[in-house]
Amino acid sequence: MNFLSDNAYGALPEIVAALSSAAAGTASSYGGDDITARVESRLAEIFETKLRAFAVISGTAANALALATLCPPHGAVLCEAQAHIAVDECGAPEFFTHGAKLIGIEGHHGKLTPASLETTLARFHQGFVHQAQPAVLSLTQSTEMGTVYSLAEIAALAKLAKAHGLKVHMDGARFANAMARLGISPAEATWKAGIDVLSFGATKNGALGAEAVIFFDPALAGDFEYRRKKSGHLISKMRFVSAQLEAYLTDDLWLKAARHANGLAQHLAEGVQGIAGVEILYPVEANEVFLRLPTTLAEALRSGGARFYDWSPPENAKSTIRLVTSFATPPEDVARFVELASK
Amino acid sequence: MNFLSDNAYGALPEIVAALSSAAAGTASSYGGDDITARVESRLAEIFETKLRAFAVISGTAANALALATLCPPHGAVLCEAQAHIAVDECGAPEFFTHGAKLIGIEGHHGKLTPASLETTLARFHQGFVHQAQPAVLSLTQSTEMGTVYSLAEIAALAKLAKAHGLKVHMDGARFANAMARLGISPAEATWKAGIDVLSFGATKNGALGAEAVIFFDPALAGDFEYRRKKSGHLISKMRFVSAQLEAYLTDDLWLKAARHANGLAQHLAEGVQGIAGVEILYPVEANEVFLRLPTTLAEALRSGGARFYDWSPPENAKSTIRLVTSFATPPEDVARFVELASK
Amino acid sequence: MNFLSDNAYGALPEIVAALSSAAAGTASSYGGDDITARVESRLAEIFETKLRAFAVISGTAANALALATLCPPHGAVLCEAQAHIAVDECGAPEFFTHGAKLIGIEGHHGKLTPASLETTLARFHQGFVHQAQPAVLSLTQSTEMGTVYSLAEIAALAKLAKAHGLKVHMDGARFANAMARLGISPAEATWKAGIDVLSFGATKNGALGAEAVIFFDPALAGDFEYRRKKSGHLISKMRFVSAQLEAYLTDDLWLKAARHANGLAQHLAEGVQGIAGVEILYPVEANEVFLRLPTTLAEALRSGGARFYDWSPPENAKSTIRLVTSFATPPEDVARFVELASK
Amino acid sequence: MNFLSDNAYGALPEIVAALSSAAAGTASSYGGDDITARVESRLAEIFETKLRAFAVISGTAANALALATLCPPHGAVLCEAQAHIAVDECGAPEFFTHGAKLIGIEGHHGKLTPASLETTLARFHQGFVHQAQPAVLSLTQSTEMGTVYSLAEIAALAKLAKAHGLKVHMDGARFANAMARLGISPAEATWKAGIDVLSFGATKNGALGAEAVIFFDPALAGDFEYRRKKSGHLISKMRFVSAQLEAYLTDDLWLKAARHANGLAQHLAEGVQGIAGVEILYPVEANEVFLRLPTTLAEALRSGGARFYDWSPPENAKSTIRLVTSFATPPEDVARFVELASK
Repeated sequence: MNFLSDNAYGALPEIVAALSSAAAGTASSYGGDDITARVESRLAEIFETKLRAFAVISGTAANALALATLCPPHGAVLCEAQAHIAVDECGAPEFFTHGAKLIGIEGHHGKLTPASLETTLARFHQGFVHQAQPAVLSLTQSTEMGTVYSLAEIAALAKLAKAHGLKVHMDGARFANAMARLGISPAEATWKAGIDVLSFGATKNGALGAEAVIFFDPALAGDFEYRRKKSGHLISKMRFVSAQLEAYLTDDLWLKAARHANGLAQHLAEGVQGIAGVEILYPVEANEVFLRLPTTLAEALRSGGARFYDWSPPENAKSTIRLVTSFATPPEDVARFVELASK
Repeated sequence: MNFLSDNAYGALPEIVAALSSAAAGTASSYGGDDITARVESRLAEIFETKLRAFAVISGTAANALALATLCPPHGAVLCEAQAHIAVDECGAPEFFTHGAKLIGIEGHHGKLTPASLETTLARFHQGFVHQAQPAVLSLTQSTEMGTVYSLAEIAALAKLAKAHGLKVHMDGARFANAMARLGISPAEATWKAGIDVLSFGATKNGALGAEAVIFFDPALAGDFEYRRKKSGHLISKMRFVSAQLEAYLTDDLWLKAARHANGLAQHLAEGVQGIAGVEILYPVEANEVFLRLPTTLAEALRSGGARFYDWSPPENAKSTIRLVTSFATPPEDVARFVELASK
Repeated sequence: MNFLSDNAYGALPEIVAALSSAAAGTASSYGGDDITARVESRLAEIFETKLRAFAVISGTAANALALATLCPPHGAVLCEAQAHIAVDECGAPEFFTHGAKLIGIEGHHGKLTPASLETTLARFHQGFVHQAQPAVLSLTQSTEMGTVYSLAEIAALAKLAKAHGLKVHMDGARFANAMARLGISPAEATWKAGIDVLSFGATKNGALGAEAVIFFDPALAGDFEYRRKKSGHLISKMRFVSAQLEAYLTDDLWLKAARHANGLAQHLAEGVQGIAGVEILYPVEANEVFLRLPTTLAEALRSGGARFYDWSPPENAKSTIRLVTSFATPPEDVARFVELASK
Repeated sequence: MNFLSDNAYGALPEIVAALSSAAAGTASSYGGDDITARVESRLAEIFETKLRAFAVISGTAANALALATLCPPHGAVLCEAQAHIAVDECGAPEFFTHGAKLIGIEGHHGKLTPASLETTLARFHQGFVHQAQPAVLSLTQSTEMGTVYSLAEIAALAKLAKAHGLKVHMDGARFANAMARLGISPAEATWKAGIDVLSFGATKNGALGAEAVIFFDPALAGDFEYRRKKSGHLISKMRFVSAQLEAYLTDDLWLKAARHANGLAQHLAEGVQGIAGVEILYPVEANEVFLRLPTTLAEALRSGGARFYDWSPPENAKSTIRLVTSFATPPEDVARFVELASK
């Protein structure tokens, strides 16, 4: 019963198989290979637009490279206060942007609101050299709290950001989970709603290590390729990253895997709903469930074999825990967890 | 007949199989898994010393992270003028070190000599704040020219560097090829000879994307882990990088693969030796062969299906070409190349 | 009636005179001159300890260089949310530290409290590579709100910081104003209370452009000199910066100038105290007075010739303004301001 | 007899007087003052074009900020191998550009030639992400060897650079000395010949610490102002830097001072010409004289009170020395030096 993280699970068999297939023969290195070209084409089909897509091997690299391409050293990136880029990447965006600032904004259920964004923007004066200049809005979809921005929410935030001259980045480490939830097209969920650049994650959802940075306006890609190389993220046998992405995009594997994970999170939430003393903290819209529950119960669950993180230190005999389901979480683990919790 | 680069070839079957095995079940992320721990232990056995080993997915990352750990922003890294870190990494060392300088020294057959190192060191004044301060000597083994430093050569250079207070890094993107040549123990070839940090390459020699940065003095590792994270190189499913390394180190697979590559380079060199107008430029000691030959012959070889790089633009109807053999180069490709060249 | 900033005023005559004296003859460049040596000795006397002092020409440079010397790229600097380093330096600390994070903590009247510091520290996990690691506490003395930390307050914060392994920096852009207020020795106010490094400001208090970065533990100075050079802040004719500092430190000129400024702020505060609708927002302990007052009154004051900043946009017909007095503010300007405000 | 450097001397009386005048009253800070505006206008007149000029306090800052504005992190700056930016600034350009490369090219008498520039450019492949991309050519005028590029030489180099898409920077730490030599207009010597950005030095030629970065195409200034702020080089009382520049530009003070320095260098060269065993190494065209002479003579000169640098370590009983004359060098020092040398 491992609910620690979606990255605790290994990889989808289709993706492993793709690596085997890609291992034979010779290919152009550094992304000049056929698989890499096909992935970009496939993404263009899926997103229904001309785009530039660049593969990297970690979400931190995807985010930091995307942000550095959009944000000058004297710029600021606005994001939710608990965003991964702000609190879980050890300052990678600051390193890649050469010293830009991340401005954390308190959100609601992990989501920014136009009002909070507007208040923050009002603190900055355009052209005032003493202040970092807001350059990018970064939204996380699905969010760190397992919620999903609606299309209208994204569009409103992106519109406001653009009215202030900002570019809009989406951290889609769990983009598939959001898409599985929203039931709209990838195009609608991104560039049509005002997203300029997407960190399209695959690792958490079944790849070994593969993400794509997608620029919906190819002109925005600018010097991305140099930044990728200079940071050691242009790997020589790129075919092996691209092969993962290709398998991931084939026959809707990415959406199927996300549906599996989301479905289990729903089951889990439904299962614990109504258990005395257990509170579901945020709407369960993707593959994460946050619970507040008696610390004794949390401990009992752990003793019973369940693994999960305390999201914050226990307080007043209550624990706040995060449960993550994945593309490979066995349904019986969820059932077992619910059973244990119900005792 | 692809002699463009060792990274034109895919991956060793044993390494692909290891990925399949590693794909099942759950594991701790970010390097907390068992495979990662085993790799470090295995390397400690192979190198016969206590060490710290960190996996990354590209040689550029390995080199740049190693150098940044050893060299302050105001420092200088001394290396052969044609070293990969100096001319093929788009300034990655400068980025990771936050602006240190790479000082290229003209070598002989790709190797530095104590005399050239001493002359360069004499240009710098210790404690003089106007100059970058030499902090690291970086040696490439095997070299960009396909030659291999002897044990005595390494020891002499390392001794001189240390007398001046420098640390010594070895870029071992082709370390296996060097070891296959030298016939000495990995310990003798590295820390016993004065090497502090080794970029231990596996990618060029049969991995999909896996390198280890090895600190022979664990204290030198310093803030390496933070640098790796901050640069996006701490991948979440680290088990998949480590699994490659584990397979690579099992049953001497790394040395066997390198012997295959080196052997073919020898065959190739022997095969073209004596062909009128064809000159072998450097001793063939690893898996690269540099030839000067009539441009007409180079073109004929290409027409016959051989692929290779011009190492410099043709001059006076002569071409300078590089041929690289790999862990997976078919012996018949070498035979065919020699046959074509001999016509 | 210029109350915009202390840096709106020019320079003290004694300091200008010192430049004239220093202009003749030859001297060693880059800080090898006699005046520079004397300044360090004089500071050692004033602070009653062995120290290293380095002159620079801007407060931003002083702060950013001090922080970069103490904080690694993966570190975090904790400071009050409105600290100059956090909001008025366009990310200079991030640039000089190569991407460290500034963590703003909401203070009370511009001051941090041990409780707020402790809460913030609890969010960080030592050795957890995903998070920036708190490395420095930066206190501003006097604060951005014109208040002054008491000796006990500094000592308590410094003690807590050190218990967590942090170094303690003091941004003393207005250190003289704080000392004029506190009536304790510079030693008591700094290193004896746990301050490791002080940005000792002179510019706001009568110099043309001169600050000293003072390391009370010479060993902490580390590579400061290289950082100063590499950032273009080691000026060739350093004698001219040092001459300013020497004059500033002679015959207590620095304290006299600060007493002038502080005294006028007191007069101003006393003068407006009790005027209907005018609220003094923070204790006036140095040379700044923050008022909330009817926007109509603020406009009337401006029409009458007073210049000052709105500290935040007017709201509900109320303005929040900042008034700064300086070493050279004419007492009659304060009297005139009070007279206008009282109408 | 101080011939160590032009920065060993203090400051011109007119410049010191300007500081006194500027010290009274209030002014807008951070360059919003009248003097700063006048300096830009005056430079526009002198250079006969619309321009943007930004004051800083060191030549290293001027150069590094100019280069960082023109060169991306993945770019390369081409310069003479002994250029100040390459060997005397401790990697400041690398820091400000966030890791760009400086490519040193061996020159003749301190000057680059179109042939050497072309050879270097041929080593780089446009758009090849593995290599830093040449972005800026930096010329030093007058050169480190005391020679002066002719108008034709500058124009030829700039033309070649621009044909390859590079911008052209001039390090004019001793620009006045070059202008005093050339007898052409500042416009002809710079933008009309293809210079995009000039580091216009004043410090070495009589200021206390003042340089201007001049963009002849205002559009190229880009984010210079943010870079200046972020690096701590936007000083609050900017009027004091600008006042130095204003005095420097008034009544041709800058040219008069340079003529003094150049004239003495000529006298010195003429005086030592023909002394047995003394060789003048480069044409004396500005304010520096390089001599090769018996080490015994060098020692005798030092014993007689002359101060100067050994440019390289003595070899075969011969010393290579540099003598610099300045705006304030007493003519009798030159006479005395020649007398001593002639003994």
